Amino acid sequence: MRLRNLKNKDEILLESQTLVLNSKEKKNKWSKHFGNDKPIHLEIGMGKGDFIIAKALANPEINFLGMEKYDSVIARAVQKMPEYIDNLCLIRASAEDIEEIFAKEIDTIYLNFSDPWPKKRHAERRLSSNTFLAKYSNVFKGSEKIIQKTDSLSLFEFSLINYSQNKFTIEELSLDLHNSRIENNIMTEYEKKFIGQVIYYVSVKK
Amino acid sequence: MRLRNLKNKDEILLESQTLVLNSKEKKNKWSKHFGNDKPIHLEIGMGKGDFIIAKALANPEINFLGMEKYDSVIARAVQKMPEYIDNLCLIRASAEDIEEIFAKEIDTIYLNFSDPWPKKRHAERRLSSNTFLAKYSNVFKGSEKIIQKTDSLSLFEFSLINYSQNKFTIEELSLDLHNSRIENNIMTEYEKKFIGQVIYYVSVKK
Repeated sequence: MRLRNLKNKDEILLESQTLVLNSKEKKNKWSKHFGNDKPIHLEIGMGKGDFIIAKALANPEINFLGMEKYDSVIARAVQKMPEYIDNLCLIRASAEDIEEIFAKEIDTIYLNFSDPWPKKRHAERRLSSNTFLAKYSNVFKGSEKIIQKTDSLSLFEFSLINYSQNKFTIEELSLDLHNSRIENNIMTEYEKKFIGQVIYYVSVKK
Repeated sequence: MRLRNLKNKDEILLESQTLVLNSKEKKNKWSKHFGNDKPIHLEIGMGKGDFIIAKALANPEINFLGMEKYDSVIARAVQKMPEYIDNLCLIRASAEDIEEIFAKEIDTIYLNFSDPWPKKRHAERRLSSNTFLAKYSNVFKGSEKIIQKTDSLSLFEFSLINYSQNKFTIEELSLDLHNSRIENNIMTEYEKKFIGQVIYYVSVKK
């Protein structure tokens, strides 16, 4: 995600009602935070939030969490948040810290257009690497479900191999999401810019 | 595979030293047929044989079997067979009959540019369908290894999902074989015609 600095971002973040800055204090208390026991879906790297906001509006029976580490990007997401939405919460945090933020509380993780980290020596930084799958495993409540979209061929190859070798089963797959039968795709702001390009999609479970 | 009739095909088939017409009689006797205990790799739908002939020449430590059901196509493969090759044998047979032709004798199966059978009601005719995976399971000697190439996006999506749901693990994967790091790719005659187009490749094991 290329970042443009937002001048008043600190103010926006501090004033937000839906942004959780002290997310580690909420560990094992996310259902309490939402005030109900609905399943919790987490997007890691929500960017400017288009995807997670639309998801939350379309699925009131689910609680959504959007995690992002860059303040300028979070501030954009905060600005887009509808006031009346009570099943979405934004978190300023890094994916590396996920085990400090969640106990076994998560039902589904979304990875949308994550950084492909194309160099081999950076492979463990990819959000579908063994390093991260092990972390996710500690925050999933029951069965582990990951839904990923990317325009990166190399990241997608890596991810499919890695899910497979970690005993995930493919539930849905598209090698050209925008020309597929998979319905109800909600586009991220990044994805909207790349219409016409191949988008890969997979949903895996274990 | 579009077929052009070969006028003298019957003659070619009958005179061939390397073609087995009565393949069912060889069941459980393929190592004996080759005269050694080398691993046996089978290509289902070898077409005109470019792939399996090159594979056999490059890998003398393995015995290769090329299976094809269309006489006109087999005749072309027979014509291409080098005389001095003793680790390759061609079989005129249909994939449906695989369990009648082999006991648990096969180490690896190749599926190259198989018919995608795009209509949903024909899904079980696809060579990576549950129907065929169950048949293959009965002819694999030990661990089950399938190596597939295709230019069909829909067949590849179907195959990856099906391998996954049948507990195969991905060993190698390319979503653009001709621009990948996977080495020693031997092209089929079909593949040679489609250079520039995306070729999908996967190697799975269980």
